[in-house]
Amino acid sequence: MSKILYLVPGVGLSEEEMKRREALACSFLTGSGNSVVVDDVTEGPSSIESSVEELMSVPGILKKIDQVQDGFDAVIIGCAGDPGIPAARELSRIPVIAPVEASISTALMLGDKFSVITVLDSIVPAIWHLLRGYGMEQRCASVRVVDCPVLDLAGNKDRVVDALVTEGKRAVEDGAATLILGCMSMAFLLMDELAGDRLDVPIINPAKVSVKAAEMLVSLGLSHSRVTFPRPNMEKLRGSVLKD
Amino acid sequence: MSKILYLVPGVGLSEEEMKRREALACSFLTGSGNSVVVDDVTEGPSSIESSVEELMSVPGILKKIDQVQDGFDAVIIGCAGDPGIPAARELSRIPVIAPVEASISTALMLGDKFSVITVLDSIVPAIWHLLRGYGMEQRCASVRVVDCPVLDLAGNKDRVVDALVTEGKRAVEDGAATLILGCMSMAFLLMDELAGDRLDVPIINPAKVSVKAAEMLVSLGLSHSRVTFPRPNMEKLRGSVLKD
Amino acid sequence: MSKILYLVPGVGLSEEEMKRREALACSFLTGSGNSVVVDDVTEGPSSIESSVEELMSVPGILKKIDQVQDGFDAVIIGCAGDPGIPAARELSRIPVIAPVEASISTALMLGDKFSVITVLDSIVPAIWHLLRGYGMEQRCASVRVVDCPVLDLAGNKDRVVDALVTEGKRAVEDGAATLILGCMSMAFLLMDELAGDRLDVPIINPAKVSVKAAEMLVSLGLSHSRVTFPRPNMEKLRGSVLKD
Amino acid sequence: MSKILYLVPGVGLSEEEMKRREALACSFLTGSGNSVVVDDVTEGPSSIESSVEELMSVPGILKKIDQVQDGFDAVIIGCAGDPGIPAARELSRIPVIAPVEASISTALMLGDKFSVITVLDSIVPAIWHLLRGYGMEQRCASVRVVDCPVLDLAGNKDRVVDALVTEGKRAVEDGAATLILGCMSMAFLLMDELAGDRLDVPIINPAKVSVKAAEMLVSLGLSHSRVTFPRPNMEKLRGSVLKD
Amino acid sequence: MSKILYLVPGVGLSEEEMKRREALACSFLTGSGNSVVVDDVTEGPSSIESSVEELMSVPGILKKIDQVQDGFDAVIIGCAGDPGIPAARELSRIPVIAPVEASISTALMLGDKFSVITVLDSIVPAIWHLLRGYGMEQRCASVRVVDCPVLDLAGNKDRVVDALVTEGKRAVEDGAATLILGCMSMAFLLMDELAGDRLDVPIINPAKVSVKAAEMLVSLGLSHSRVTFPRPNMEKLRGSVLKD
Amino acid sequence: MSKILYLVPGVGLSEEEMKRREALACSFLTGSGNSVVVDDVTEGPSSIESSVEELMSVPGILKKIDQVQDGFDAVIIGCAGDPGIPAARELSRIPVIAPVEASISTALMLGDKFSVITVLDSIVPAIWHLLRGYGMEQRCASVRVVDCPVLDLAGNKDRVVDALVTEGKRAVEDGAATLILGCMSMAFLLMDELAGDRLDVPIINPAKVSVKAAEMLVSLGLSHSRVTFPRPNMEKLRGSVLKD
Repeated sequence: MSKILYLVPGVGLSEEEMKRREALACSFLTGSGNSVVVDDVTEGPSSIESSVEELMSVPGILKKIDQVQDGFDAVIIGCAGDPGIPAARELSRIPVIAPVEASISTALMLGDKFSVITVLDSIVPAIWHLLRGYGMEQRCASVRVVDCPVLDLAGNKDRVVDALVTEGKRAVEDGAATLILGCMSMAFLLMDELAGDRLDVPIINPAKVSVKAAEMLVSLGLSHSRVTFPRPNMEKLRGSVLKD
Repeated sequence: MSKILYLVPGVGLSEEEMKRREALACSFLTGSGNSVVVDDVTEGPSSIESSVEELMSVPGILKKIDQVQDGFDAVIIGCAGDPGIPAARELSRIPVIAPVEASISTALMLGDKFSVITVLDSIVPAIWHLLRGYGMEQRCASVRVVDCPVLDLAGNKDRVVDALVTEGKRAVEDGAATLILGCMSMAFLLMDELAGDRLDVPIINPAKVSVKAAEMLVSLGLSHSRVTFPRPNMEKLRGSVLKD
Repeated sequence: MSKILYLVPGVGLSEEEMKRREALACSFLTGSGNSVVVDDVTEGPSSIESSVEELMSVPGILKKIDQVQDGFDAVIIGCAGDPGIPAARELSRIPVIAPVEASISTALMLGDKFSVITVLDSIVPAIWHLLRGYGMEQRCASVRVVDCPVLDLAGNKDRVVDALVTEGKRAVEDGAATLILGCMSMAFLLMDELAGDRLDVPIINPAKVSVKAAEMLVSLGLSHSRVTFPRPNMEKLRGSVLKD
Repeated sequence: MSKILYLVPGVGLSEEEMKRREALACSFLTGSGNSVVVDDVTEGPSSIESSVEELMSVPGILKKIDQVQDGFDAVIIGCAGDPGIPAARELSRIPVIAPVEASISTALMLGDKFSVITVLDSIVPAIWHLLRGYGMEQRCASVRVVDCPVLDLAGNKDRVVDALVTEGKRAVEDGAATLILGCMSMAFLLMDELAGDRLDVPIINPAKVSVKAAEMLVSLGLSHSRVTFPRPNMEKLRGSVLKD
Repeated sequence: MSKILYLVPGVGLSEEEMKRREALACSFLTGSGNSVVVDDVTEGPSSIESSVEELMSVPGILKKIDQVQDGFDAVIIGCAGDPGIPAARELSRIPVIAPVEASISTALMLGDKFSVITVLDSIVPAIWHLLRGYGMEQRCASVRVVDCPVLDLAGNKDRVVDALVTEGKRAVEDGAATLILGCMSMAFLLMDELAGDRLDVPIINPAKVSVKAAEMLVSLGLSHSRVTFPRPNMEKLRGSVLKD
Repeated sequence: MSKILYLVPGVGLSEEEMKRREALACSFLTGSGNSVVVDDVTEGPSSIESSVEELMSVPGILKKIDQVQDGFDAVIIGCAGDPGIPAARELSRIPVIAPVEASISTALMLGDKFSVITVLDSIVPAIWHLLRGYGMEQRCASVRVVDCPVLDLAGNKDRVVDALVTEGKRAVEDGAATLILGCMSMAFLLMDELAGDRLDVPIINPAKVSVKAAEMLVSLGLSHSRVTFPRPNMEKLRGSVLKD
């Protein structure tokens, strides 16, 4: 029975939307008895559409994880920029799931190259930078956008699905064998389901995959390696940057 | 409720050992109602310790998958050489799980580099070749061996665990953040559990990970991309190479 | 005086066509006194247009090489998928020539990047996979097709040559400095000669290059390294997978 | 006449040490009339010895740059983890100098591979991650440590220089042609000068190189490309994450 | 006070043009008291538009450096093919600046990928070869040409600037974040300034950057590493190939 | 009937030694009627043990090729630094064989990685630079030396063979599957034959392989691609750098 925290790294979501996502996240679970709690941070951006917002979301993420990790078995960072991952893993004992990293891990089992489809041009270089950090630049056929701000996605679902289908087809021309949704708000609108019938290649939903990866690692009793994510001097951190 | 075939690509296992593995594989499942069936091929090697045996196991694998895939939701190729994967995916509609590929996908979420620990020197170049084909050569710190033939593993469990611990420590010196067991018979002896307390880095068990990956892909409704694994001319194949 | 076996890894060729190829292969020889014998396997596909057929051709190849290698100085695997190469080299003492590998070795002396021109889309990912295994993905500008099944090539020679010229020009736009014919049946139709005047870049014929490579290695007294292709337990193999 | 901000991304330095560094930084200037101002952030870690501290330093950096960039011609982020670089460049119009990036740019002109010598094991993976993000993993021979916390460096100068010489010699055995000091506090202790006579390879001081790089870019009239660092929606940012 | 030699590796320039370049090069200096002397070789090509001319320029370069290095603090090889760099560094004690290498070092601080814009198609493969030797092939988005011989550049300034703008825009479509002028004669026509207003990305002028790099290395007291550029047997060289 | 020029790029060889090499080179031929002529340049180094000497050998090579190519079918540059290859191919219509490039092409057919064994430490970085230019750095396990100047090799044959065996064994520990002799004088002492019985891996002799490669390309009617080696403006070259 694993308890998973899905951490929204911003302050923009309504209580209602959080509940909606929690219900969906729970529906993605495989193991009976497992559960997902959706929670947000106390400081952070309203949405993440730039490296600035991505990095400004990290302190809230780290403080929250430090405070609540004892009550959970795994934590998912709820942003497709995978913000703060190395730091979060350093201070966490429980597995920290990075949605794009988990999506890539899935994509590698399904085909040679993948494309990422995200929201806006302003975040595209940050995604390439993320992929390079993962050593996955050569496996990415392209990063494409539906050209819609995060907070406008829900209100423009049809247009966004159309854009996803159009860009997905272009991504296949770029050489993509699979598509990764590069935005968690897109993922919780279940765009993989909406666009799936209109595209011939697998669409990977990072919200679903993150929940599965969290369950898997917990049940395997595996967490990140201290070779790559060494335990920092926690006393020093709690006396300084992690102090509220 | 997904039904997974774990296909042993050889003819060496006793009925009893098959049942033992089936029970274990079922214990690795996360979803209630899911099941794993362990079955073997009708033609193939007694064990796989060379590229020759690896490739000689492929016809049996392909014929079996072609015959039984309608009765299953996913199939795991039960060998850490991932034999015949591209071909198996071409002719299969259901997801085909490659144990080392799935283990790498897990390892990438846990640390920078991994090492593979397998049985004998004679199979080491084949593993490097496999990793190169996956584009993962740079992520592999080393391939090391416990120096014990597959069929002697069960009878030398203590010695093999000792060797696993010794080689695992050397692998960490090589730069490995995680270890992948490079043999399914080692995996079903649960060497990750036996050696886990004596090593400071995560040990990835390909048998466990394969079952999890199969469940995950089935529940996500995802299978391999036809961009990378195009559907062959099945009529031609069934009239020729797949004919019994 | 070296005696070279050109092994057709399928059962589709008529005796007449085998004789025609043998005469041609002999005409590619440089050393007087050398000879090429064309022979086929006893089990295998009628033509190779998928990974399935490629891998199903391997057992026939391995058994034949094991049986006849004492009578030859080198063996050429007669398929541009280079099927079964690691295994064939493990069990062979004489050099085993892989036509695409030998063609790449030649291409590297003639220009920066090469493109492969093969028959059908269904085999393109298998060729990329082969190139990745050789560490040559970055050197390949593109893999293109003439869109004609293997068994229809001879009957559509003009159309195929036209397609080769068209695709060859596109390959040069892709960045190719040289072209490799990615099908042995195309090679034996001498498409390099037919298209040569209409293309400004070298066309590498894998049949010709394979014969030259075989002669060269034999006369240098060189065979593959046991570091990469370790000698397997032959007694075990002959008692199991290599037994007829 | 360029005015350069050297921004200390932490709150640990005494006013006196800041003045000392400012005097040194000014002494590194090439152009007469140019000046360096050393300033720190209002929130941040006391020293940076983990990814956690590195990422917790970013909000202070970004807010400061946003507030003061109009008064300067270039800004140097005073930490050898190059914290927050993509985000800092997104919101900055003036060039933002990353000390390790600038040191690598210098190292590439002096030899094939470099090694980084930093303070503690706990920060080594973060440096490898940084190098991977720069596409420079293959050019780095090793990352080594003097094994001394940042705040203890000044009080253990002799011991640290000895360690630098010892590790520098090991780095040359690793294949390094040049050495990069991987800590700004080491750089301001002028360890390149202290160890220079005892090592046969160039030692690159990131503090000195950063000042030179800042001067150079300003005098060339060059700043970072908006292709890689697109201008974010500043109105949104100033209404949210950049608001004090 | 550093004295820099800018060595023109050919015999084509008029005394007047040499003086013009010297005045410009001096205007690129940052440090007061520093100076640049422009000089040419006694044997060499009239302009460099092929690998042949590039390599034929090397003996003149090496002999000149050997003769005059005692009178200078650094030397710039005045050709964007960076001719003879490894050899020049072997025999030189003072830093030898390679204009394209220095430009890449600058480009890496400004954006992800760069494109090189040079004169003629005949020199494009040589530039790719140079980039490959620097390990920078993956960072180069494209190499493009203004299609004008070196000696015709000055007389066709408007047309060349137009071509630079057109090709620069195409380079951005290729993925370039920055542009490097791939010809020193283009650089001394100050094409970065002429085209700068019409292009949205930084244009890197190798003449300016080379002067800055020379000043920087001299003032840092750094020269190339003997690990990569070992000191040759100078007695042997002066008795043979360096003898006039 | 092909006529091959083996061009010694230096002035150090006695007429007698040239004749000895010519006889040996002819003995490496496969095709009856083919011939090798050994000739040297009129200007160049006495031996090549540094990048300086390598590059100083190029003008002599280029002038000779330009003058004599009409009388030959292929030319081998007789130095294991492959000096001047891009330029030689630009101005040559006949195939230009680069001994190390040809040896690598052979090594790739025999095993995964190779090591190069050359004469002196002073030339090791030049060989790594050459390999990087060929995109082969990752395939090279190590470059090792017998520590003997070129001109002392013949007089110290036993010691050199011992060193070759010792270094060859170390190279195998480095991961080498094959060894390439990195010096043509070593090659003409037939060190592959002398050391062959004492080493378990293939030793590739660049002199032998170059003769075979020349014969092969001539008989295939293939020469280098003008995509990579564009034809320069020959009129300009002959009026300037190629003029005697």
